[in-house]
Amino acid sequence: MSLPIEFTRIAKHFAPLAATGGLGLTDDAAVITPPPNRDLVITADAMVAGVHFLPSEAPESVARKLLRVNLSDIAAMGAEPLYYLLTVSVPRDVPEAWFKGFARGLAADQARYGVSLLGGDSTSTPGPVTVSVTMFGHVAPGAALRRSGAKAGDDLWVTGVVGDGVLGLWALRGERNDPDGSLANRYRFPEPRLGLALAGVAHAAMDISDGLIQDAGHMARASGVRLVIELANVPLSPAGRTEGADFVASGVAGGDDYELLLAVPPSNAAALQATARAVGVDVTRIGKFSAGPGDVSAVDMAGQPIELGRGGWSHF
Amino acid sequence: MSLPIEFTRIAKHFAPLAATGGLGLTDDAAVITPPPNRDLVITADAMVAGVHFLPSEAPESVARKLLRVNLSDIAAMGAEPLYYLLTVSVPRDVPEAWFKGFARGLAADQARYGVSLLGGDSTSTPGPVTVSVTMFGHVAPGAALRRSGAKAGDDLWVTGVVGDGVLGLWALRGERNDPDGSLANRYRFPEPRLGLALAGVAHAAMDISDGLIQDAGHMARASGVRLVIELANVPLSPAGRTEGADFVASGVAGGDDYELLLAVPPSNAAALQATARAVGVDVTRIGKFSAGPGDVSAVDMAGQPIELGRGGWSHF
Repeated sequence: MSLPIEFTRIAKHFAPLAATGGLGLTDDAAVITPPPNRDLVITADAMVAGVHFLPSEAPESVARKLLRVNLSDIAAMGAEPLYYLLTVSVPRDVPEAWFKGFARGLAADQARYGVSLLGGDSTSTPGPVTVSVTMFGHVAPGAALRRSGAKAGDDLWVTGVVGDGVLGLWALRGERNDPDGSLANRYRFPEPRLGLALAGVAHAAMDISDGLIQDAGHMARASGVRLVIELANVPLSPAGRTEGADFVASGVAGGDDYELLLAVPPSNAAALQATARAVGVDVTRIGKFSAGPGDVSAVDMAGQPIELGRGGWSHF
Repeated sequence: MSLPIEFTRIAKHFAPLAATGGLGLTDDAAVITPPPNRDLVITADAMVAGVHFLPSEAPESVARKLLRVNLSDIAAMGAEPLYYLLTVSVPRDVPEAWFKGFARGLAADQARYGVSLLGGDSTSTPGPVTVSVTMFGHVAPGAALRRSGAKAGDDLWVTGVVGDGVLGLWALRGERNDPDGSLANRYRFPEPRLGLALAGVAHAAMDISDGLIQDAGHMARASGVRLVIELANVPLSPAGRTEGADFVASGVAGGDDYELLLAVPPSNAAALQATARAVGVDVTRIGKFSAGPGDVSAVDMAGQPIELGRGGWSHF
């Protein structure tokens, strides 16, 4: 890490967040002894002002969402989080208060999720605020859950409710009412579904970031099995239920939800429900995998096919 | 990792670079089994177009420098590199050829340094190209070299020559002649000083990224010992020797060099020279640590104090 001049800033705002292995954020690199007899799970996600969050968003919220989207990837592998590294590129005129708020957000979610900072880099940029995290977790050897493990006969389950993330984004853009701000907060503060005991229970897992239909399609394709989603069973919030019949089928619902999609054999349904109950998370069966080409389709309550839109998030 | 739509781009340009643990870059995270009985060394560095490299720089060069500055941090801890994660934020109008060149640069230096890609993220940005790497290495337990380990009586050594990095930057800006382009290439392609057997030989190590004087000062302060640099002994290239007497003392020399500073007890000088010879790197003794407050000063050939400038790189 270079962490050049901003020595004072780092010492003041970020060093208090450092893990022991972060060496006070003053060395060239961090040093950790990995947990013995565990695999490491490692992910990285970046966020850019104007792309992933509104430029007006509070730095505290940006920090918390940045940690949470990365934690969600750790959860999606069935792993437990440990540490993260952070790179921050900000314009020169960003005030000290921005760093203070950003660090306050990191501190809040470090405490909430039991992770700490190993190191990183801080640079100036002539462009928008750009932040990225590399997050580490650990899992029993060979127990990491991939998205390619779904098998014919598995059911598709989803945690929580689908659709409030994108509704929150619309609310923040002023395109939807949100009297108590709860939808906006759902977009700002997704809840990584950590703590579920999924090893031996689920065959495959992934988180929903781009949209339910798009991401479920990834699981079906990666697993080489056919997936039929029962749209009427997709769990929606009261706000989501006001969106009309096409909300889920269009593909937009699920973007920024960070709920987990799980492929679970029927014989493990009770075990899934038990671990979900133990951590206070709802799980709902929303589809079925069967032998066939790796693709996704949908049916209505009567089992009649419903055409799926191509909504969902794409960067390019 | 979200790696959203750019699925095709990732599959085409980046998947061929992936380590086994990268799971083809198609999953939420990478999974690795850490090398048994080793500590992990982890560092992150970001680069922004217009700040860390000229916007006109070839993507291949950007990729190679990005890997090398991170590899230099691994080298500075006395570790061996393993894997990296990559986040790339680029404007929407960046052509496919940019990614092709960037991936070609990564591939070239992956082969050169024996590292491979674990995963990452790719996003759009309304700002300049912004890239960051998190690099992993491994080292014997407890053997990572910190910058805080220098002891009174140690000599300060440096690898290679000092100053060509900043001369290369000046040449690229048109502020200095560089008939054969060798200085520009020294700036573009720093050589991470991997492979030195430093465990049990050096007490402290760090790489020079911001400038020799500034970085040597960090080592002295972190170690709580006084450092006197013998300026006449600082190794310069023929180009560096044309820069005048103040080149090193001003503090600018050493920026972007990525040479190693090493604190080595006199009894280990021969061992240092032997391992340096084995990997074909020059090492030069340029100073001495002594008991006293953690600071840096300099003397000339006659041992007379020389005033040091406050040059060196700072982001804010």
